[in-house]
Amino acid sequence: MSGGMDVRSETTAGDGEEDDLLLQLRRLEISDNGKGFVELLSQLSPATGPLSDADFRARFADLAAFGDDHLIVVAEDRHTGRIVATGSVFIERKFLRGGGKVGHIEDVVVDAAARRRRLGQRVVRYLSNHARAAGCYKVILDCTPDLRSFYEKCGFAEKNIQMALYF
Amino acid sequence: MSGGMDVRSETTAGDGEEDDLLLQLRRLEISDNGKGFVELLSQLSPATGPLSDADFRARFADLAAFGDDHLIVVAEDRHTGRIVATGSVFIERKFLRGGGKVGHIEDVVVDAAARRRRLGQRVVRYLSNHARAAGCYKVILDCTPDLRSFYEKCGFAEKNIQMALYF
Repeated sequence: MSGGMDVRSETTAGDGEEDDLLLQLRRLEISDNGKGFVELLSQLSPATGPLSDADFRARFADLAAFGDDHLIVVAEDRHTGRIVATGSVFIERKFLRGGGKVGHIEDVVVDAAARRRRLGQRVVRYLSNHARAAGCYKVILDCTPDLRSFYEKCGFAEKNIQMALYF
Repeated sequence: MSGGMDVRSETTAGDGEEDDLLLQLRRLEISDNGKGFVELLSQLSPATGPLSDADFRARFADLAAFGDDHLIVVAEDRHTGRIVATGSVFIERKFLRGGGKVGHIEDVVVDAAARRRRLGQRVVRYLSNHARAAGCYKVILDCTPDLRSFYEKCGFAEKNIQMALYF
């Protein structure tokens, strides 16, 4: 479903036509390990080190097996050939609500050098649209309180607290 | 891995030996649709209606396909043959943290008539142990603020906020 998504329709008023063409959103591809995808994730989680091509391919295959139940979107800067924004969503299938589905957004990050271009909003909208098209009744995510207003701009509302147990 | 888990080792000081035998935790089975599993979920989410056997089996098969990456635990009261507690965890595979894994706990509920027997803590511990054994670096969940102290007793700490977008 996302493969047929019209990226232009996602363009916000703040994006110029030219910027839109240079920064189209698309699904992660196996060649993206050479385009800075994992380095970009390290801006989100400093404990992230580089992945060997073999490890990258193995994880890529793990996730591809989920089909449309797991999606990673990336924005590649066509000038530099680098990945400058990404985010993921996976679809959880439940027994409650008549066998309802929930989208979980994870690992949204925009390259520090590519901010102020509404890329984050475009990524979140892409992922939310995917969850809606998959039949989810809601999409959720966890974030630090300083990102509340950003996600409110994306249509989200604060709902609960997140608890964590680190091993 | 969870199949070999020793339920006795999960027993807390507050559980009597007899109670432990009558309320052993085990994985959800396809026959549990007749034991009140979905009705129990409706205590968590009032929008939950009954599932036909066909719909229950279809969702069960969807989730079984994930193998140990998705687990639903239940406690069956052996006196009544009813499911009185449940919770689920799914394992998310990431590219960050060297291809790290995160456990997501969802849909923890204890029957209102079966409270005060530490069943909730046993369910959460069962799910957390599963995530740890699966190699997760953390396990996370979202809850209302009134459940903060319950999850703190289970070893969790408040970390972030949850944002939601309903369709």
